[in-house]
Formats: sequence, C-alpha cells, structure tokens
Amino acid sequence: MILVLNAGSSSLKYASFRVEPGAPLVCVAEGEIEIAARERGGARRPLGGDPDGGSARDHEEALATALRRLGADTGDAPLAAVGHRIVHGGERFTAPIRVDEGVLAALERLVPLAPLHQPHGLAALRAVAQARPELPQIACFDTSFHHGMPPEARRFALPRALGDEGVRRYGFHGLSYEWAAERLATLDPAAAGGRAVVAHLGNGASLCALRGGRSIATTMGMTALDGLVMGTRCGALDPGVVLHLLRRHGGDVDAVEDLLYRRSGLLGISGISSDMRTLLASDDPHAAEAVDLFVHRITRELGSLAAALGGLDALVFTGGIGEHASAIRARVCRAAGWLGVVLDEDANDQDGPLLTRADAAVRAWVVAAEENLVVARHVRTRLGLP
Amino acid sequence: MILVLNAGSSSLKYASFRVEPGAPLVCVAEGEIEIAARERGGARRPLGGDPDGGSARDHEEALATALRRLGADTGDAPLAAVGHRIVHGGERFTAPIRVDEGVLAALERLVPLAPLHQPHGLAALRAVAQARPELPQIACFDTSFHHGMPPEARRFALPRALGDEGVRRYGFHGLSYEWAAERLATLDPAAAGGRAVVAHLGNGASLCALRGGRSIATTMGMTALDGLVMGTRCGALDPGVVLHLLRRHGGDVDAVEDLLYRRSGLLGISGISSDMRTLLASDDPHAAEAVDLFVHRITRELGSLAAALGGLDALVFTGGIGEHASAIRARVCRAAGWLGVVLDEDANDQDGPLLTRADAAVRAWVVAAEENLVVARHVRTRLGLP
Repeated sequence: MILVLNAGSSSLKYASFRVEPGAPLVCVAEGEIEIAARERGGARRPLGGDPDGGSARDHEEALATALRRLGADTGDAPLAAVGHRIVHGGERFTAPIRVDEGVLAALERLVPLAPLHQPHGLAALRAVAQARPELPQIACFDTSFHHGMPPEARRFALPRALGDEGVRRYGFHGLSYEWAAERLATLDPAAAGGRAVVAHLGNGASLCALRGGRSIATTMGMTALDGLVMGTRCGALDPGVVLHLLRRHGGDVDAVEDLLYRRSGLLGISGISSDMRTLLASDDPHAAEAVDLFVHRITRELGSLAAALGGLDALVFTGGIGEHASAIRARVCRAAGWLGVVLDEDANDQDGPLLTRADAAVRAWVVAAEENLVVARHVRTRLGLP
Repeated sequence: MILVLNAGSSSLKYASFRVEPGAPLVCVAEGEIEIAARERGGARRPLGGDPDGGSARDHEEALATALRRLGADTGDAPLAAVGHRIVHGGERFTAPIRVDEGVLAALERLVPLAPLHQPHGLAALRAVAQARPELPQIACFDTSFHHGMPPEARRFALPRALGDEGVRRYGFHGLSYEWAAERLATLDPAAAGGRAVVAHLGNGASLCALRGGRSIATTMGMTALDGLVMGTRCGALDPGVVLHLLRRHGGDVDAVEDLLYRRSGLLGISGISSDMRTLLASDDPHAAEAVDLFVHRITRELGSLAAALGGLDALVFTGGIGEHASAIRARVCRAAGWLGVVLDEDANDQDGPLLTRADAAVRAWVVAAEENLVVARHVRTRLGLP
C-alpha cells in the first residue's frame, strides 16, 4: 500500500492505494481528520479530539488516527511508502523527492515563502518519521509543474537581488494541473498538444496556461494569495492597497495577513460564506456580488493567459467548483464566447465532460481532480515499486 | 490666458493657453521647473534654487518662477484661471470642479489613497491661492474618467467595509484617456464606438479598456502602483510578496513603499535605468530582461482587457514610450497578432498614426498625449469662458 497525506491547517487528508505489479493503482480508502485550531485570539473551534477519532489535536495525533483507520479499512496489507503533497518546493525541488534530514531542512527554509501552508506539510512529514521511521517518504510539490515557465512569467518587476533570493512567481496546484494535462491528452489530443487553460477552482483557485501540456504561465505567484478570488483569500490586489492596509493596522503584518488570507475573497465580499454552494443558493445581493467578481476575475485572467499562449484551443475546469458548479462554468464559458467557446447548456448541466457544442472553435471540458493518485504514482515511480 | 499646472514630486510642469472667443485654445508657452528633493535619508539632488530660476525649493517658489516666465513669454495677456491636474478625486469628484476651502479639505482627506502624489497637487493649489487669490482654480482628476466602470471592475475581493471606506479600484491617467478616446473618434469612428484599449506608456504606465469611448476597466488600482511595469514602480505584485517584504524590513512600511515605488520596475530589473531609451540602447542582458518583462506584462493585460470588452477593435498607443518607442510598439503589436493586429512595419517606423496593415482586423494607432489641453478645455467649459 502507498499512503498519501495532504496536510492543511485544519485537517489531514489521507488516501491509500493498493500496489499490484503491473496494475494501475487503486484507491482503497480515503478520509479526512479534523485538526482542532490552536487558540489564536479566540479559538475557532472547540479544542480536543472527539471520541470517534474524527478530530485531533495536531498532525501527530491525526496521523495516528489515519493509520488506525487504515488498519481497519485495509486489513494487513503492509504500507510500502508515504507520499505527501507539499505546497512549496522553491527553486530546488523541481520534481518529487525522497525526504531525508537534508531535504527536511531545505523545506524548512521555504517556510517564509508560504508561512500559512508549508508548516503543515512539514509537520506531517515529521509525524510519519516519528511514528514509522522505517517507511520511505516522498514529497511531491505543488510548485514543480510550473518550473519550466519562461523567465518573464516567473519574474516580478522588483530589484534583481530579490529575484535572486527567490522572490519570484512559483505557481501552485501543480499536481492538479499535471493530472488535467494528462486527461486532456486523452480527451482532446489536439488541444493538449496546443494551447489550453486549466481552471482549478476550489477553495483555493488558480488558472494555468498549458502549451503542449507544459505550464507557461499561472495566476498564483510566490504565494498562494495571488490571482483569482478565492474562498477567503483576496487574490490579485494592488500592492499599494497592501501598504495602505498596513498603515491602517499600525504596521501589524500578522493582522493584514489574516485579513487577506482568511477574511477576504468570497467571504469578505459576501459577508456570508466562503462556500460557493451557499452563495449560489442565496438571494442576498452581496452573495451575487461575490459570485460576479469571482467570474469576472476568471474571465479577465483567462484573457491574460490566452494572450500568453497566443490564442486558445481548450479550457478545462477542475476542482470542487470547476467539477460541480455548472452555473459558474456556464458564466465563464459565456464570457469566453469571444475566444470561441460555445457552451452546450445540456452538456454543462450534466457536468460534461465535454461542455461545448460541436462547432465551437475552443472546446471546454470537465476533469475530476485526482491529486492523491498523482502523488501515489510519483511514489511508485520514484521508489521503483512494481 | 489659462494656466495649467501639473505638480509632481520633483517638478512643476506648466502650460498656458490663449483663450479667444470662438477659437480653439492655443498653447503659447510651456515648461517645467525642477523642485529640489527634501532631505530624506540623503538628498537625491542638491538643495537650493539655481540662479536661472530652473529649479526651486518648493511648489511656491516653482509657481513664482512659472508666473515670472509666463509674464516674459506672453506679455501682458491676463490670467483668467488656473487648471490643475490632480491625481486623486476619490469617489466624490467625478468631474472637474472649482476649488474652494471645502474642496481642498476633501482632497486633503484623499492623501492616504495617494500619499506620494496627492500632496504635490494640493501644494500647487495652495501656492496659487496664496500668490493669486483672485484667480479661479479648477481641479481636473486623473480618476474621473474611470468613474463609470462597472462594479466588478472597481471592486477588490476584500471585506465589504473596506470597499465602503474607499478601498477600491479608481484608475488613473484619465485625462490622457479622455484625449485618446476623442482622437480615436476622429481617426477610427467604428472602433471608437466599439471596443478599444488605450496604452498610456510613459514613466507611469497603464492600459484602459474603452467601450463606446467610456472606460470599463483599467490596470491601475486604488493607487498608481498597480498594473504594468513602470520606470521605477513594480506594477501588479502578489500581495503575499508585499507581506514578505514587510517582514524582511521589520514592518517598516515606508521602506517597502520606497522599494516598490522608486527602486522597482524597469530600474529594479535592469539595475541600469528607469528610462526606456537607455534600456533599448543598451546591450546589457539585464536591460533586455527589463524590456522583455515590460512587453510581456502589456501583452498579458491587453488580453485581460480584451476579455473585459469581449474582443478588440483597436489599440491606441500614447505617452512618451507609446508615441516614440517604435521597437516597443512593434513587439506589443506582434504579440497581439492573435487578437487580429497586423503591424505595418514602415508605418510603425514613422510613428503612424495608423500602425497596422489595411487587412488587419484590429487597427493600432498612435495618439500624441495632450493632457494640458484637456485640462485647459475643462477650465474654459467649467468657467464658461468665451
């Protein structure tokens, strides 16, 4: 078995895959364990594990719960390795890597580039090393897929020395884009060999421009705060506004970080929810405004990425919103009519996979995200499992 | 005569226009007076006025010099009024306005939205009120032209309360766009009635999407720091990077502001110069990288604005770089080939005004910026001068 872990701030997601020689990996169990929020100006949820093992105090306890559940779910099939989704691989980690002390130390040094995400992935790596030191661990990075972007797509207009220090655009959601690119090669080989944009729309959201299946530009930057409107993140924001907010908060960087990461986006505009389902079901005009801005910014960034590609052959939706929110897909596709997207309303209502009419110059598709499977396959390949 | 003032941090630009009943305004004198930088961690240029009156200690002294020069240039034609280019008109000033104490106080309150620009315009307003209290003064705003942008083009994905406080996209260079829209109506009436993007490319730079001559989207935000790469300004930047830089500078907002406004952009990337002419003439690869990024970001934002418009009929270049840097125009036009721009190389070498071949689906034009004339005309209209 290969265990895949995806550690976030508030949960540990896990999935296990059966490895049989010559056969594709099969997911045999998956789940999510809530991790109680630490107190930080008021706890956001009650502290302490719940009696069913459905929540945990920290990543160590969550891992123990996951291993216990897997034992119950999968019987005695032994674990061969653990794969992790790690947010930031920096300049150095351009492919999945087996984790040792040196790698862990290098990943620690990237924490300042992703202060709200990187520590959780590292906590899960350490928890496994503690509980099951004999297991090989493979880290797979959300940044690696974008490593080949051309220089002008990676560079900010800042003093060179900052770029040399690593202040540049990395991009994220790479494991999702890797899968979408592979699926597109099957669904629409011509577009996969040409110019496509993948919209990964979930609680986090970004777009990626693919030329011949490789990332040439993306909307997220050095951090996962840039680009599209997200559940609680602001996305692209005038840097002068960040300075303004800092003055307003007396230079308190933590307070502004909290504002931009946790109280902005769909939640901030609507004042109601960060959840697209809630907003789409609401008749509050503020909910409609949040949805309008979400769609507007996708529309604009899609134009920007089409420009980077010099045109567009296909548009792919993935992620929770991309796979299930037909109303959002419909609006994005209609706004992309100028690019040649012609929506087939019935196909869209049925979640595709093909969303466009036969005569559309640009085809649109739905692809179900499979980040866990991508990680498990990297583990298998990297370790040479049968 | 109408005097037009454009007060910046390092100079006072002036122009005077002769008003004759029923005739168009004619510019009879114009010039620029340097203002010595105040000491601020090391003066950037020597303090003190030069004996020729070519530089001044502050806006009052600069105004006195301008009035003296105008007296010499224009004989005894009396001044009827003064018009000012003011950067920020906020939510309230959606059109040129005659300045009184109440207006001045309202403009003071906008300083936090444009801390590096607004104070200079106000200093010029006050200097005139002091020196020539009898003269009516009209303030014309760089923001007014964008006032009608739809809500989703004006809104950031921040908590609603911040939007209600005025933290939203205003856009700038409006006096330049107003002129470009008017010129386009003469040059290319079909495009002026349709979908056009104007590229104002100078030391400051932005793009504006025009539908039927009205702004529906623009690249600058609440401040003039957002959007394209500029001479020394970073333009669009991952807000997470601003937070990172603040941590790196120990929470010193002034230091980061200085970095992003004065040491970034073309200067920061090239390490050589903020001046496009210098960069284009250089064979340093860092100069080439700066130019590459400048063009790349215009290309991307042009795609984004074309998406806002649902397609494109014309592209207009204006501003110092837009009017004179044929190499930049050529690169932007070639990268916009996917939109239907087909460059006529010879026409471009001759600075247009039409830059595209007869068979181009999207026409490109050069328009010489005339912001002073736009201000003078607003003064004439607002005061009902003959």
